[in-house]
Amino acid sequence: MIDVPVALLGYGTVGSAVDRLLVENADDIERATGHRLRVVRALVRDPAKERPEPPADGVLTTDFAAIRDDPSIALVAEVMGGIEPTGDYVLELLRAGKPVVSANKQLIAREGAELFHTASEAGVQLRFEASVCAAIPVIKILREALVATTVHRVLGIVNGTTNYILTKMEEGAEYGEALADAQRLGYAEADPTEDVNGADAAAKMAILATIAFGSRTTLGDVAFDGIEQVTSEHVRAAREMEMVVRLIGAATLTDGKIDVRVGPALVDRHHPLAAVEGAMNAVMLQGDAIREITLEGPGAGGMETASAVVADMVSIIGTTGTGFLQNDACWRELERLPSGDARSPYYLRVEVEDVAGVLAQIALRLSAHRISVARLVQHQRDGGATLHVVTHEGAEGDLRSALQEIESLPETRGAPSALPVISDRGIAGLGWA
Amino acid sequence: MIDVPVALLGYGTVGSAVDRLLVENADDIERATGHRLRVVRALVRDPAKERPEPPADGVLTTDFAAIRDDPSIALVAEVMGGIEPTGDYVLELLRAGKPVVSANKQLIAREGAELFHTASEAGVQLRFEASVCAAIPVIKILREALVATTVHRVLGIVNGTTNYILTKMEEGAEYGEALADAQRLGYAEADPTEDVNGADAAAKMAILATIAFGSRTTLGDVAFDGIEQVTSEHVRAAREMEMVVRLIGAATLTDGKIDVRVGPALVDRHHPLAAVEGAMNAVMLQGDAIREITLEGPGAGGMETASAVVADMVSIIGTTGTGFLQNDACWRELERLPSGDARSPYYLRVEVEDVAGVLAQIALRLSAHRISVARLVQHQRDGGATLHVVTHEGAEGDLRSALQEIESLPETRGAPSALPVISDRGIAGLGWA
Repeated sequence: MIDVPVALLGYGTVGSAVDRLLVENADDIERATGHRLRVVRALVRDPAKERPEPPADGVLTTDFAAIRDDPSIALVAEVMGGIEPTGDYVLELLRAGKPVVSANKQLIAREGAELFHTASEAGVQLRFEASVCAAIPVIKILREALVATTVHRVLGIVNGTTNYILTKMEEGAEYGEALADAQRLGYAEADPTEDVNGADAAAKMAILATIAFGSRTTLGDVAFDGIEQVTSEHVRAAREMEMVVRLIGAATLTDGKIDVRVGPALVDRHHPLAAVEGAMNAVMLQGDAIREITLEGPGAGGMETASAVVADMVSIIGTTGTGFLQNDACWRELERLPSGDARSPYYLRVEVEDVAGVLAQIALRLSAHRISVARLVQHQRDGGATLHVVTHEGAEGDLRSALQEIESLPETRGAPSALPVISDRGIAGLGWA
Repeated sequence: MIDVPVALLGYGTVGSAVDRLLVENADDIERATGHRLRVVRALVRDPAKERPEPPADGVLTTDFAAIRDDPSIALVAEVMGGIEPTGDYVLELLRAGKPVVSANKQLIAREGAELFHTASEAGVQLRFEASVCAAIPVIKILREALVATTVHRVLGIVNGTTNYILTKMEEGAEYGEALADAQRLGYAEADPTEDVNGADAAAKMAILATIAFGSRTTLGDVAFDGIEQVTSEHVRAAREMEMVVRLIGAATLTDGKIDVRVGPALVDRHHPLAAVEGAMNAVMLQGDAIREITLEGPGAGGMETASAVVADMVSIIGTTGTGFLQNDACWRELERLPSGDARSPYYLRVEVEDVAGVLAQIALRLSAHRISVARLVQHQRDGGATLHVVTHEGAEGDLRSALQEIESLPETRGAPSALPVISDRGIAGLGWA
């Protein structure tokens, strides 16, 4: 048995849970690694603060240098959150030759490339499983299990709040009602802006795209849209098409170019992501040798996050000295796919006058822009009609051009709306129609 | 860059795919590990045999000792299948201090405990991701990502053939028709016995239970039943109850006792396993710190299997010398749960005479044995009636006693049938009713 002193930056909900898991699972960890990990220092602002689960005496410190400069500390887990001074601490630790585990989504999404590079230069690991979808081990799988497969697409439901709201809307709730419900149950913050506008999901997709494709992708590279504009009518129309509305993050590698986006989409009810309900998260990885793997689990929670942090700590101990995962995770620079070139099937809703020939007019505009119709449902109402159209795969730019022309038709009422459709799978020929 | 010579036992579909993946992904593997893996020897019976993808000159050999005794060979991947002489080869390699990767479900299910012990004694790793569900990295997740969580339940759809058949039956096919379809498409063998009788799933569940609970579980410890008795009526009744029929493997740790079984079950349509369609596999892991994680993907295929073998090889290179995963995977001996003590909700179907009071009689027999009714649907027909009952959780022994009494009631026609119901999740309080 080898005693391994480790340190934490932060000792809040996650930090104290990490400490507890290390103690409670010490035997399991020793069986797996031959080592016992023990928290010897934890950086906090106020050691005197009342804590429900205080650490052992002498662990809390306000002195960052006491962690950075202690040669006995084998690795550090950053569970304090925030960007400043957290980012500087992590950089200093890596430069000092200490492996770091971070649970910090914002930090990795914003400054990941610099951190990865610094870790690689210093010859130490930076692990960050808990920064995306808590205990779902998607980073580990991308970096280790899928080392022999080229992942070309990552699809994810990576925000639990919005998925909870959309699931409630399927059950009949209105958007505002479902949001209030999510807040009452603690899934949504008092200010849910970052959840409902897609920014939280975009940060996670930036991290996933960076790791899946090996090229720096920041929040600024992710086009994101939220669920504020999703109405009960979208949900009903989706159901009629045998689909459900989900907030989908999609990172795609097409001809060496990257496209990353987050937005509401209609998901075919036979697609694995359609079955993800409530506050759960899920990520589907599509690659050549593996076709597709979908991971589903709780995407948040203090204990789930702590569990992922501990697993990363154990993985570092289990690989130290071998050179494993010390490469720069951003090892190439790929271009962005021009947004108009992104391809998808789409769902369109067009309100029209109920006059003869209108359907033909719309089909004509679509086909003129290489958008072909797969399915169509027409609902008559108010002397007008609503067309629900599902298209085959087409380019986003072509779709936009077609929609502009459709909007300007005299028979069209208001602006048509469009959402991407998720129905493709990496597993053609595996018993799927 | 460090050149790492490796060897294969076998050079069939999987072996040649492993060789190809190592070559094609050499740069990715070097980035991840700092090493390049190169197949220098492959044991085959007949090197002169015509091969669609032959290896480099001089790789094929009929001499096992040339692999075992070559000190330059860093690890060996066993992709030849079978028990004899494969098992002896693997034991000899481990004893000779060579880490081994095996894709051999039958070998690990039957002789895993001895192999794990031998590897541990020799201080080398034995990895076997590909032996269960091909490229779905469930073994890696159990052993590495969930090191800080106590897994108490593993639920799996681990046989693609039967899942394909059951999905087809949901779409209206009869059992025989769906099986013929599976054979025509190559999902089922000409002799599909091991698939449809549950034996294949039982072998996989034995491996999963062994790793999840750390206690030797062999095929003989798994009570298994197949899908031969599943009828269209079961499928229709399930749909009426908002459930689907699936062949479920369940490994459960209750009060320190293990229960492992495979059999048809009714799965609530909101449960993640209900969404697993066609020839896909899925495994749900329930544990304390992580609540639940579900992994879904193709459970078979030469390239998928090879991808898992390569990932294991890379993981060994990335951990060698650290002591990681060199413990005996069977580190404790847990008792079996007496079968009557296993608890589950159940679906019951009882054919009865349509006479007054029969429902009360049946409810009385159930409650006398502590089985309480959650839902009930009665269908009248032929002057009789069919009762479809879903119970709350009860003990299997109690259920059996109640069913015996119900069968002996004068109003009951024939033997009542019962199937377990899968509706519980590890995530109470996460927005699920």
